[in-house]
Amino acid sequence: MKFTVDRAVLLKALAHVQSVVERRNTIPILANVLLDAAEGRLRLTATDMEIAIVEEVGGIEVGREGRCTAPAATLFEIVRKLPDGVKVELDHRGGDAPLALRAGRYNTSLMVLPVEDFPSMTEGKLPHKFSVTAGMLRDLVDRTRFAISTEETRYYLNGIYLHATEVDGTKVLRAVATDGHRLARVEEPLPDGAEGMPGVIVPRKTIAELRKLAEETVDEIEMRLSDTKLQVKLGSVTLTSKLIDGTFPDYERVIPKGNDRLLSVDKNAFAAAVDRVAAISSERSRPVKLSLEKNHLLLTAASPDQGQAQEELEGDTVAYDSAPLEIGFQARYLKDITDQVDGQVEFRFADGSAPTIVQDASKPEALYVLMPMRV
Amino acid sequence: MKFTVDRAVLLKALAHVQSVVERRNTIPILANVLLDAAEGRLRLTATDMEIAIVEEVGGIEVGREGRCTAPAATLFEIVRKLPDGVKVELDHRGGDAPLALRAGRYNTSLMVLPVEDFPSMTEGKLPHKFSVTAGMLRDLVDRTRFAISTEETRYYLNGIYLHATEVDGTKVLRAVATDGHRLARVEEPLPDGAEGMPGVIVPRKTIAELRKLAEETVDEIEMRLSDTKLQVKLGSVTLTSKLIDGTFPDYERVIPKGNDRLLSVDKNAFAAAVDRVAAISSERSRPVKLSLEKNHLLLTAASPDQGQAQEELEGDTVAYDSAPLEIGFQARYLKDITDQVDGQVEFRFADGSAPTIVQDASKPEALYVLMPMRV
Repeated sequence: MKFTVDRAVLLKALAHVQSVVERRNTIPILANVLLDAAEGRLRLTATDMEIAIVEEVGGIEVGREGRCTAPAATLFEIVRKLPDGVKVELDHRGGDAPLALRAGRYNTSLMVLPVEDFPSMTEGKLPHKFSVTAGMLRDLVDRTRFAISTEETRYYLNGIYLHATEVDGTKVLRAVATDGHRLARVEEPLPDGAEGMPGVIVPRKTIAELRKLAEETVDEIEMRLSDTKLQVKLGSVTLTSKLIDGTFPDYERVIPKGNDRLLSVDKNAFAAAVDRVAAISSERSRPVKLSLEKNHLLLTAASPDQGQAQEELEGDTVAYDSAPLEIGFQARYLKDITDQVDGQVEFRFADGSAPTIVQDASKPEALYVLMPMRV
Repeated sequence: MKFTVDRAVLLKALAHVQSVVERRNTIPILANVLLDAAEGRLRLTATDMEIAIVEEVGGIEVGREGRCTAPAATLFEIVRKLPDGVKVELDHRGGDAPLALRAGRYNTSLMVLPVEDFPSMTEGKLPHKFSVTAGMLRDLVDRTRFAISTEETRYYLNGIYLHATEVDGTKVLRAVATDGHRLARVEEPLPDGAEGMPGVIVPRKTIAELRKLAEETVDEIEMRLSDTKLQVKLGSVTLTSKLIDGTFPDYERVIPKGNDRLLSVDKNAFAAAVDRVAAISSERSRPVKLSLEKNHLLLTAASPDQGQAQEELEGDTVAYDSAPLEIGFQARYLKDITDQVDGQVEFRFADGSAPTIVQDASKPEALYVLMPMRV
């Protein structure tokens, strides 16, 4: 294998694929990137056995077709440090010979591992196919990912549940995540071709990789899926991922119906007050208590070592017209949700110990459920 | 104690003093800041028993004079989160009563600890007094601090050795730091009043605090010292620090004389080449080898797992006219020193295993000694 490529082109492709490589690997070949040069194009592949990312770049001067594998992180670091605008030549004579990289007066020999040992991920049949925009993907991910559980024993909650459903006769693509303390549910119009897709749980790491790629690649994203695999094509990048083999809980049962005590509060004033009141305690899991009366909200927090803090909101920032109520929430959970809200936050309470619904008044397509804490 | 102060004024003062407070304290009172309001001014003190920082701010509306102590980090966090432009009222009724802070519709009660328990640092007599500019202090610190040892057993190297001496008949104030692998020595013209000052070792943490304060406070800095204490006055801030009670080694013996093999190399080209060549290994202590011939420098590095890398520098970036030489240095140590150099780096070698002198061609007042590594 021998080819020449612009440093910028190689760097971008390596950045995309090396991101999936785990820093600590027990299987040496998984630390490597597979380079495959043929017919004027270079294909780069990296995998952690759960996700494989393949990027194909054209316009490569291929002197000798072939394949080899080399340490992904080291190759990326080296190319990153090469001067901008330089041409990079990669040359592998085959077998155990090291991969030579030359750029100007710099050259390096990188150890290779056998191409045959590089695991290939077979995607199998992917009967469902549809397209989403990068903006839609970002939206589905950004507004739900904070609620993904990190408890490894609840592996079926370690991802975003993506599925097709109907709301009042309108077909939607819905993303749901929950960790048992809060739940996030967002929906977008169902793309053509997504009818009949199975409900799938996309793992956290796949979500993170997709989110990065959705930031900087093309706007039109092609998704294919089966019960067990997801394949996403973003321009020259193809990401294939296993899905979480588990059953997502019946989240609809968690979403309360008939919560009729409505609090509408200015997001900025509320978020700043929560932040200030919570500053009394360095323990992140300590609750902030909301005490509600007509058009009046008192936020309080206390720490046994430091003292207590409170702030009042009323008048122009708070609208509440139901019976008085006291309820506590973790400050961090309140922040995660208000971060998703632009103007006015709406809380719908049942009582002081029941799950509460939170929404952005201007974005009814996103809904959050928050479990209260004892205060 | 009761007073009102602008949030911005209080925030700045708290930022200065709370910085010295250790996050993990076994002695509770050391987590607190001492507030002392009297005669239209507020004095804030924080200490870790090694360093005390006192800040005095004027223009305070004092309603009731008095003193109290409150958790420094929490108070700082709260004031930081208050809206800009707000007036803050602090009110302590004495004894065990909590410290009340009110700002707009926010208020907090902070636990206090007895003022009597707050340790006071006596500075004793400080017979030596001189002034330096903030620029001069930054220079002395920035160009030496990276070489301070972090080995706690060599406590006498855990700081910068500051002393007065003479170079070719000119009196200078000299800063020296070393960790046994490299040494940094910088000098500035001796300020008036510093003649006869004792050689003192200023601890790392004191250096860090001084450096921060020198960035943002006044330009004229007043230093007073004895054999055991240093007191620095930067505008409204007074920092008093214990000095390291030990003997700094006779560093002059470490600085080689007669190193006559001179390499002059462009800093940017050299630093970038070292960085690229070292990228082959993730171990930071691996050496980069310099192989020198007439006007030619070859940099090489190797990693048993990853491979090897090399880069050549010659012609317009390298001037060398002595016998061929091979010598190895830790890449990180080379980086620390070249970070201090602007244009041309000068190396003065004796041979491949002897200490090497490094200097910025345009700044002879700074000198670095680097121990080679076996390659």
